[in-house]
Parts: sequence; C-alpha cells; structure tokens
Amino acid sequence: MSNKIITISREFGSGGKYIGILVAKKLGIPFYDKDIIEEIAKDSGFADEVIKRASEYAPSKSIFAYSFVGRNANGESIEDKIFAIQTRVIKELAAKGPCVIVGRSADYILKDMDTLNVFIYASQKEKVKRTMSFKGVSQKEAEKLISETDKRRSINYKYYTGQSWGDRENYTVMLNSTDLGVEKTAEFIAELYRQED
Amino acid sequence: MSNKIITISREFGSGGKYIGILVAKKLGIPFYDKDIIEEIAKDSGFADEVIKRASEYAPSKSIFAYSFVGRNANGESIEDKIFAIQTRVIKELAAKGPCVIVGRSADYILKDMDTLNVFIYASQKEKVKRTMSFKGVSQKEAEKLISETDKRRSINYKYYTGQSWGDRENYTVMLNSTDLGVEKTAEFIAELYRQED
Repeated sequence: MSNKIITISREFGSGGKYIGILVAKKLGIPFYDKDIIEEIAKDSGFADEVIKRASEYAPSKSIFAYSFVGRNANGESIEDKIFAIQTRVIKELAAKGPCVIVGRSADYILKDMDTLNVFIYASQKEKVKRTMSFKGVSQKEAEKLISETDKRRSINYKYYTGQSWGDRENYTVMLNSTDLGVEKTAEFIAELYRQED
Repeated sequence: MSNKIITISREFGSGGKYIGILVAKKLGIPFYDKDIIEEIAKDSGFADEVIKRASEYAPSKSIFAYSFVGRNANGESIEDKIFAIQTRVIKELAAKGPCVIVGRSADYILKDMDTLNVFIYASQKEKVKRTMSFKGVSQKEAEKLISETDKRRSINYKYYTGQSWGDRENYTVMLNSTDLGVEKTAEFIAELYRQED
C-alpha cells in the first residue's frame, strides 16, 4: 500500500508524544494518540457492543475507564474488546492517508502497510526531569510513574502482539531524544519520511 | 571536547562496516575499523610489551592471533592487554580529529568525548543473505557465523565496558539497514553529524 504511516513507540517521559506532534506539523499530516483514538472509537459506534458488554461488569460512563483493569479470568476481557476496537479505528485512520500515530501498538497493527516505525527513548535523568515538570510530581513519583507506565506498556504490547516492546527488530529507527534533542529528533523523522518515498 | 567522532556498533551481516566507510567518505573524514586499529597498534610500538608477554604463552608471528583465545585463568590475559593497547590507539585517533570508528567498543572508550554513537541492525534474512554473498558460505554457515560473532561481541563488550551490547541506552541512534537500505542509512548518519554541530 502506498499510504505511509509513521508509528511512534516511546518510553514514558522521553518526549515521544510531543515529537510526534512536531513531526505531524512539519509534514502537514494528521496526528493521533490514545486520547484521539478513544474519541474516534466512541463517536464511530464501534464501541456500542463493548459498552453493552461492559455494563455486565460494572456501571460506567465510559468504556475506557476499563482500559487498564486486570484481565478477567472468566469470560471475555474488556481490554481485549477495546484492543479490537482500537485496532479497527487505527486501520481505518491509516487507510485514509499518511499520518502519525503514537502508541497503541500501531506498529504491529499496521504491519502489512508501509510504515516508518520509530522508537523514542531518553536517559533516565531526562525522563524524570520531564515527568516532574509536565506532571508536577516529585522525583520519587516521577520515577514510579515512568517505571510502572513502561512496564504496563511492555506487558500489553507482549500480550497483544507476541513481540517484545523496545526490541530493535520491531522498529525502523530508534532515537535517543536526550542526545539529539526533541526538535532534531522530530526533524530527523520528518526527513526520513520525506526521503523514503 | 570539540572533535566529533562517529562510533558504529553493528550486528554481523548488517552492512555496518560498509555503512561506516560510506559515512566517512561522505564527510571526508578518516575511517577506522579493527584491522586498521590493529595495524596502527603494531606500527606504534604500543604492542612491544604485549609481544614480549605473548611469547611466554605460545610462539606467534602476530600478537593479534591471540585476539580471541580464551582468557587465561592464571596471570594476565592477553586479551586484556590487547584491549588496553587498542584503547590507547582509539583515544589517540579520536584526539586527532573527527573520524568514523567501527567496533572495538569505541562508544565506551570515548564516552567522555563528543561522540555520535550509532548501532546498525538488520533483519535475520538480510544478514544471512549478505553473509552468504560476502563470505561465500552456505546458509547454515552464515547463520552460525552471525550467531557466534554477535555472541562474542556481546560477551567482550560486557566484559570490558560493564554495559550490554545493543542496549539502546548506549547509543544516540539505532538504525535498521534492511528497512532503510545501506545508502540511506549512511546518508542519515552523515546528515545527523552535519546537523549536530
């Protein structure tokens, strides 16, 4: 397929989401992350069946409150359903044309398409600093948030893709945003995208 | 320090050495790999003491025949001595000015300098194909060569640096030469180098 999609996986606190926004802006293509994909899923009607099912488990205003509940041992898992919905949303978005998608295992979901799969990482020091600044938390809280978020990402990625999160073989390039700086990291990705055609 | 050095670590069969040569050519700076560093060490006189010691173990025309013998349980290891010599050679080369150095744990040896640390990897299929072609070996032999060489690199890197070979935190960028192609991989490294100033 000729649509080229940039997928960005990233360590928590590495600036990956911001880099994704910069890349999309530089290339003049849409940007999608978890929040946007969830919004689209809600609006699209994909979610109806899940909302129905979710209501069997607990009352909730949003199916997405279930995003990270533990997997249910008996019966179908809400997480699995949500993953299925997000997969459909991501495939539909990708089919529309070039875009940047951050997270959501998009590299795996779009593995049969023409993708540029990027992994952004950073030094622990820089991740802690960025997390403290953007989340307004203490150093200890930042360290906990980084460790727990990446652990969860890793587990979810493994569960849904069978691949290992952060393993180089899954990505076209892996970039250290501490060494390069976020602006240059974004420019580098945009340049790769332009030249790969 | 202001000298910028490009260090390239690479999976066997990923085209990393060739990419290094291309980068050096594009930037008009010297290229050094294991063979060149060994030659310089021999010519520099650094090696004298080691040759003397090596002769205690076994007769040999070259100290470098010892490069990969097992480490000696009693007394000093020849490998350790060779690593010390290569470290001195690499530091001297780096002090002279910008250059490209492939392998030899140069990323670690030059960790206090201004370096662009690159890791090149490739798909297994591509590595096997390239190894069969360049080494004139069978598929099975190529697979063995790839696996054994990278295992040895990994062990040596760990032993001398305390770091894990291929771990993203040691590198500025990690590039998949299968996805990008060797020519574009080289061009991106050169471009990063030019832009980082």
